[in-house]
Amino acid sequence: MRYFFCDQYWKISKDGSAGPIFFYAGNESDVEVYVNATGLMWENAAALGALLIFAEHRYYGKSQPLGPGSIDTEPGYLSAEQALADYAQLIHYLRGSLGAQRCPVIAFGGSYGGMLAAWLRRKYPALVQGAIAASAPVGAFVSNPKFDTSTYWKVVTDDASAAGGASEPCAPNVRRTFAAIFERRASLQGRQQLSEAFHLCEPLAESDVEALAFWLQGAFDAYAMGNYPYPSSYMGGTADHPLPAWPMRVACQHLSQADMQDDGLFEAIQKAVAPMYNASGSKECYKVSELAGPAATPKTWLYLWCTEQMPQEMPYFPANGRNDMFWDQGPFNKSRIEAECLDTFGVAPRYSWAEIEFGLTDYSASSNIVFSNGELDPWHTGGVLHDVSETVVALVIPDAAHHLDLMFSHPDDPPAVVEARKTEVQHIERWVKEHAPKTHAAAVPVM
Amino acid sequence: MRYFFCDQYWKISKDGSAGPIFFYAGNESDVEVYVNATGLMWENAAALGALLIFAEHRYYGKSQPLGPGSIDTEPGYLSAEQALADYAQLIHYLRGSLGAQRCPVIAFGGSYGGMLAAWLRRKYPALVQGAIAASAPVGAFVSNPKFDTSTYWKVVTDDASAAGGASEPCAPNVRRTFAAIFERRASLQGRQQLSEAFHLCEPLAESDVEALAFWLQGAFDAYAMGNYPYPSSYMGGTADHPLPAWPMRVACQHLSQADMQDDGLFEAIQKAVAPMYNASGSKECYKVSELAGPAATPKTWLYLWCTEQMPQEMPYFPANGRNDMFWDQGPFNKSRIEAECLDTFGVAPRYSWAEIEFGLTDYSASSNIVFSNGELDPWHTGGVLHDVSETVVALVIPDAAHHLDLMFSHPDDPPAVVEARKTEVQHIERWVKEHAPKTHAAAVPVM
Repeated sequence: MRYFFCDQYWKISKDGSAGPIFFYAGNESDVEVYVNATGLMWENAAALGALLIFAEHRYYGKSQPLGPGSIDTEPGYLSAEQALADYAQLIHYLRGSLGAQRCPVIAFGGSYGGMLAAWLRRKYPALVQGAIAASAPVGAFVSNPKFDTSTYWKVVTDDASAAGGASEPCAPNVRRTFAAIFERRASLQGRQQLSEAFHLCEPLAESDVEALAFWLQGAFDAYAMGNYPYPSSYMGGTADHPLPAWPMRVACQHLSQADMQDDGLFEAIQKAVAPMYNASGSKECYKVSELAGPAATPKTWLYLWCTEQMPQEMPYFPANGRNDMFWDQGPFNKSRIEAECLDTFGVAPRYSWAEIEFGLTDYSASSNIVFSNGELDPWHTGGVLHDVSETVVALVIPDAAHHLDLMFSHPDDPPAVVEARKTEVQHIERWVKEHAPKTHAAAVPVM
Repeated sequence: MRYFFCDQYWKISKDGSAGPIFFYAGNESDVEVYVNATGLMWENAAALGALLIFAEHRYYGKSQPLGPGSIDTEPGYLSAEQALADYAQLIHYLRGSLGAQRCPVIAFGGSYGGMLAAWLRRKYPALVQGAIAASAPVGAFVSNPKFDTSTYWKVVTDDASAAGGASEPCAPNVRRTFAAIFERRASLQGRQQLSEAFHLCEPLAESDVEALAFWLQGAFDAYAMGNYPYPSSYMGGTADHPLPAWPMRVACQHLSQADMQDDGLFEAIQKAVAPMYNASGSKECYKVSELAGPAATPKTWLYLWCTEQMPQEMPYFPANGRNDMFWDQGPFNKSRIEAECLDTFGVAPRYSWAEIEFGLTDYSASSNIVFSNGELDPWHTGGVLHDVSETVVALVIPDAAHHLDLMFSHPDDPPAVVEARKTEVQHIERWVKEHAPKTHAAAVPVM
């Protein structure tokens, strides 16, 4: 298990007391991604005298319990529960080896990492004193009766509308494009037109048209999650060619006219997805085999989906083409998904497991968690959106995409994000203060 | 997995609301033991309109995941975490199949079952609304720096003293007896005397003298845990020949004189342990091979000890013969224990695991738990003895042995136990009341 450690800001007083431990609960990437992106931890470390730890999730990055490619050798040890236990072990080990037994630990995380941060506080409340759970869709499980999976695509669509600062005709144009694509599915001539319009390297087979559509949908998905106010490569593009500021608005600039014809729509959408799939502009065409259909989910995440039902937008949250700008993807397809899980890993989905193990959005018996949610982020529909108690609070942040509050400060940050970060730091300060050693209340013998 | 189900008292109203689920978190025995013993659940079911569930712990009784004798086939699936997950699954399943999704669940348990009840509330707070954790030594782990293992035997000794209602010379006499036994260890003649005095069927080898001493200690251990105010077979004896009321006091009646000689002491101790080991009086002698030394720990518990460090009094909590009436058993013997775990299961003890996973006695971030502790019960020294908050409370019950408060009411119950049960029911009533559906607090958008 790999972790990054930075003690340059850690304050240790003469009486042996020390500053808090800021602990990033790594999610489904190489942990260096989170080391480099989590400005909220870096920017507040000095003021709070905090030690910084970034822990890598087992089976990701260099943390391969059975050597490189552990997912192919033996996926069975990959689970959120085991990752949480790894983090608990690491916290215990660090506290002991650093003489930091009394230091409060504040968990941080975004997205699945935010879920892990909230669960660390819920499941290990004696080890972890509080959690900043940013854009954590703890309720975004298909078995959750309170979670309407179609709302995810509704938010993506809102981002591509005037409400999201985009051109009003954008969403209707996108919806019309998908209809026009599927109209051409059955005919050779139609597919030739699609192949040319979308710069594909090869002819498009009938069975690949859906993959093309999902690939296009994927770009809009990324623009919604990554709808940041400044150029960023966090959700797409490269360091040299990041997604532009407000990428959904930029994409929608190509789709801003109300009376576009089909070929104009195709050309516009092709331009709209280019920042995602051809950031440097160097690709002359896209290989059909590389269209990012649902099968492109990394195996490490697919296993978590199959066993723990982790949120996975495509194809598990079907769009319906009515409340959203995509197309009717039908009801949740249990048998297709079960076949995929069985074929790939020999396992069957445990639909109720997350509800049993983690309690979805019911945090009434927990404390010291900030759930932050960006209103532009489609994942907010699966988050905790209402204050649960004085110590379990929900922030709903207008003009913010996927866990923007965790990122480094930027001059173009919307004021609401600046405010949200302040609120988060106030909560952290209170958790640290309240963790000071207490004396026992008096014993209460009966009689 | 086996469970018992009783819905005869369950109240279901016309509006679909229903009474609570009382859920016994089975511990290390056939669950029928707890069905038959847990009067607190039975006696309050009617008044609270409760459904009663008694769940059996995996690898115990009939709940053998790999068939009979699962512990010998594959012990690897035996853990407290898995037992808790079993209970969570069962609660979720029952709620769904009975249409009881909104029913509050109150966990009950005594001893290790009390630990499981507290942990259920801690780890599954959305599924379990409160817990009665009776005589739950959640801090009785050898790695807990706040837990002095010698205090266990100090309480056993207090029970055998005037403070416990026994004769004052009892404890000193017991201590002298152990000294006299070990004085005879090296000589054949001495061991012959021991063999005769303790009614052994065979000559006693030098290497068996320690086992004899532990066997005698085991009876006093049982009398302390089972120091109930009326005859009971819960901690020893049989249904026809239960331990007597206040068994420690009865045992001490044989040891009430200050000036007893060694042979008088041997005879007295022999009589003192007879209710434990020869309840019906039909045994003419005790086989040396059956002396209940430390090796007699059932494998199912030894595995939990080796892997989870579950509390185990002998030989893991060594007596010292100074604060207690036994003998100096030396320091905690890591290497001996590690060898035993390795030989038996091929595993090594994880000394810090319980602290990491369950947080020992730190319940500052939990709610809705009553920790009850009998002052006569040696396990109370490893329990939560001070109120943690308004909703995590500690009851210290004078005149009560191991989870007496869970048992059926009896005319000879000490008033303190009657009072403790009332307090427990008040907490349960509050948890049930507070679980009524709530409306959300207002959303708090930033800005």
